[in-house]
Amino acid sequence: MLTVIKIGGNIIDDADKLHAFINDFSKIDGSKILVHGGGKLATEMGLKLSIQPNYVDGRRITDKETLELVTMVYGGLINKNIVAGLQALGCNAIGFTGADANIIKAVKRPIKDIDYGFVGDVVGSGIEPKILTTLLELGLVPVIAPLTHDGNGSMLNTNADTIAQEIAKAMAAIMNVQLIYCFEKNGVLLNAEDDNSVIRQINTSDFDQLKDDSIISGGMIPKIKNACDAVRSGVERVVIGNAIYLSDILKGNSGTVIQ
Amino acid sequence: MLTVIKIGGNIIDDADKLHAFINDFSKIDGSKILVHGGGKLATEMGLKLSIQPNYVDGRRITDKETLELVTMVYGGLINKNIVAGLQALGCNAIGFTGADANIIKAVKRPIKDIDYGFVGDVVGSGIEPKILTTLLELGLVPVIAPLTHDGNGSMLNTNADTIAQEIAKAMAAIMNVQLIYCFEKNGVLLNAEDDNSVIRQINTSDFDQLKDDSIISGGMIPKIKNACDAVRSGVERVVIGNAIYLSDILKGNSGTVIQ
Repeated sequence: MLTVIKIGGNIIDDADKLHAFINDFSKIDGSKILVHGGGKLATEMGLKLSIQPNYVDGRRITDKETLELVTMVYGGLINKNIVAGLQALGCNAIGFTGADANIIKAVKRPIKDIDYGFVGDVVGSGIEPKILTTLLELGLVPVIAPLTHDGNGSMLNTNADTIAQEIAKAMAAIMNVQLIYCFEKNGVLLNAEDDNSVIRQINTSDFDQLKDDSIISGGMIPKIKNACDAVRSGVERVVIGNAIYLSDILKGNSGTVIQ
Repeated sequence: MLTVIKIGGNIIDDADKLHAFINDFSKIDGSKILVHGGGKLATEMGLKLSIQPNYVDGRRITDKETLELVTMVYGGLINKNIVAGLQALGCNAIGFTGADANIIKAVKRPIKDIDYGFVGDVVGSGIEPKILTTLLELGLVPVIAPLTHDGNGSMLNTNADTIAQEIAKAMAAIMNVQLIYCFEKNGVLLNAEDDNSVIRQINTSDFDQLKDDSIISGGMIPKIKNACDAVRSGVERVVIGNAIYLSDILKGNSGTVIQ
């Protein structure tokens, strides 16, 4: 079983939580891949460098300076911090981006209403599983930063959720895969105000009904839609849960399982 | 033949020269590995971040903030800029540091007269050739940033010349290797003032005599000593030359060959 895990800013920005997560992650049996997002570190570093966040219609734009910033912070600082942490525990991590070994093919997002700048959209079937498989066979643990390239010499800022999902789908053609999305809640909640109201299981066939009943709403809609999509593409199960309970998630005792 | 090339700040800091180098490098036949140094970019970025360069007895110290800076700039910005440039030319580059896959074992430099801070010294026979060999067999081109890790969760700032030399020596046990050090001069000069006075060939047995005659002096002494050392360890030849003449160096028409 290959375990693909995605972590975001709520873990990356908190040194203690990140340390605990790295410890739990290092203990996972079998092959594993970690995809990490960005977090506040890039914004803070950007402020120090006088790179003003640039928003259009509430969406952050990746201009040239911001691209350099995220390439440094995601591809360098965060990625290597995690790699060094895993190596210290004897977990043979190898950190890279989607540009490296051309592992994730992407295109610069086409300009429609908004020009998002240097943002990459992963090309359908854009993952090359052969190299990832070889790295796993060597006992290595890929740690992937949310960056791709445009084929013309430029890096591209790319959504970590999408990268995790596309890697899980591509690897599912070769081996059994579970995909774990870690976020700040304990799972999909029946009642958004009650952190203990986790829905333990969602079947892909339940999605429309849950949406109609407004049990799934807002930002959870694309998250769960993507999870259902991954399951339909052969991923054994997707779990949405809280990184601080990773060992419970792995035992099936925490988070929402989508299958 | 495996070609290991090291480039430094004089190429990295000049976008046009770097672009031309990447183009020449991408055309090299056979297996190749690129090791890059740092350059002024880290210093400039450090000034913007109010990280003051910290020197003791003329030597730069890598304190915690400087370590974060070089991890970002060397491991992120420079490394991925080169990778994206090579990928645009169809050269399947994979960028990483010595920490990744634990490819370069290092220790934090022991404190004697000076505490250099987070600086790594490569451990003798500290290179793991198996993973590098597998990457080369996959047709990948490793691009290595001058960073290692201490085994306790911290990255370490590490000399790129040393990394290139140790990789060349370790790989020489498996395949034929040539090592090319690119710097700002056209080679080892008979007359430091005359850029056309390149000594075309130095045999390892000539080293002591050239040093006694002061033909090799200053910063060239350790460079050539290391080159001789690499040749004695099985590297077929070491060439010291100017990156802008890389294609001539490869044809044997430029630079100083040490063998």
